[in-house]
Amino acid sequence: MARDKGFYITLEGPEGSGKSTQIKGVRDGLIERGLEVVVTREPGGTKIGRKFRAVLLDPESKRIVPKAELLGYIADRAQHYEERIKPSLASGKSVLSDRGPDATLLYQGYARGLDLKLIEQLNNIALDGRLPDLTIFIAGDAEYFLRRAWESIDKTSDTQTRFEQEALEFHKKVVDGIYDLAPTNERYVIVEDNEGDSIKTINKRIMEAIDSRL
Amino acid sequence: MARDKGFYITLEGPEGSGKSTQIKGVRDGLIERGLEVVVTREPGGTKIGRKFRAVLLDPESKRIVPKAELLGYIADRAQHYEERIKPSLASGKSVLSDRGPDATLLYQGYARGLDLKLIEQLNNIALDGRLPDLTIFIAGDAEYFLRRAWESIDKTSDTQTRFEQEALEFHKKVVDGIYDLAPTNERYVIVEDNEGDSIKTINKRIMEAIDSRL
Repeated sequence: MARDKGFYITLEGPEGSGKSTQIKGVRDGLIERGLEVVVTREPGGTKIGRKFRAVLLDPESKRIVPKAELLGYIADRAQHYEERIKPSLASGKSVLSDRGPDATLLYQGYARGLDLKLIEQLNNIALDGRLPDLTIFIAGDAEYFLRRAWESIDKTSDTQTRFEQEALEFHKKVVDGIYDLAPTNERYVIVEDNEGDSIKTINKRIMEAIDSRL
Repeated sequence: MARDKGFYITLEGPEGSGKSTQIKGVRDGLIERGLEVVVTREPGGTKIGRKFRAVLLDPESKRIVPKAELLGYIADRAQHYEERIKPSLASGKSVLSDRGPDATLLYQGYARGLDLKLIEQLNNIALDGRLPDLTIFIAGDAEYFLRRAWESIDKTSDTQTRFEQEALEFHKKVVDGIYDLAPTNERYVIVEDNEGDSIKTINKRIMEAIDSRL
């Protein structure tokens, strides 16, 4: 994995897929492999992005139209890229992001029904065409993931975002989107998380995917 | 001016151009001509838009990168179009907006240096290609306008936005942009406001422009 420049890796999956738990293990794995790693997230990977995120996730924003919501996420992404991702990569660091451009394809595209080509066009505008080198989708049974998402809400109320209030149907569309999207590009890889799989098992699968792809 | 559907008219000009003062007179003139008029504004013509606007104009957002700022305005515009402009026009009302898509060409394009084609592309996305029927630019001496803008700040502190803190050079780029943009499309018209011209005189010029174009 020796390379002058850093890798740009994003971790994707529906709520309850354990992304945030996995991020730490993946970061450790990348450090073990000799990389300097910047861990970040979308939306809200910058101070300004957190303000955009607050508007988008505010329960008072329920009347937001899908296209304005999409553009709000793209604005967050443009700030994130320019302020954090681009300088990190330029200085040779790797970027590991909890969600990125493909989340918008899954949520605003597959789940909310906005045009995928439009989203790709806007992602390219936000990222100056610099898409991730590798995007790992954690996928599995939508009902299982939703159950875990609800469990985590009980523990930490500030994760009770609009997305986590969405119903099973929405979750299923996101998971279906992953299986539809994954074969379209070499930078996509699916890691399955089935009921009973341990955090360690999933982490091992993710690191194997990284080792084989990067 | 008899027509089934309403007109979509925007009023543009730098800070201190008297736009907000003129809006009232233009509304009255349109009502006199038998139109039902919805007066609105960008950014912040909707509840959600006002939240985006607050992020964009927050002095704490000074680190916002130009492209994220642009996308924030486009998000506001998409919400405004879908929630207010489109239904108003569909019900036969005319829409008179204090700023609209061309403000973004002037401010983010001519003044901040972002690509004009990119802005046009994003405006079309936000408005589903439904650009204004008529855009009136109030133009004149940049120094004169800036002086008036500063005078109005003394009276109402909450208008002391980031834009009004910008220097003369920025103002000049906006005014130059107006003169560059106006000849490129039939829907553009310039109304000059020179030192000594009364509010009534400017209003008369605007209504003449509307009568000759619509």
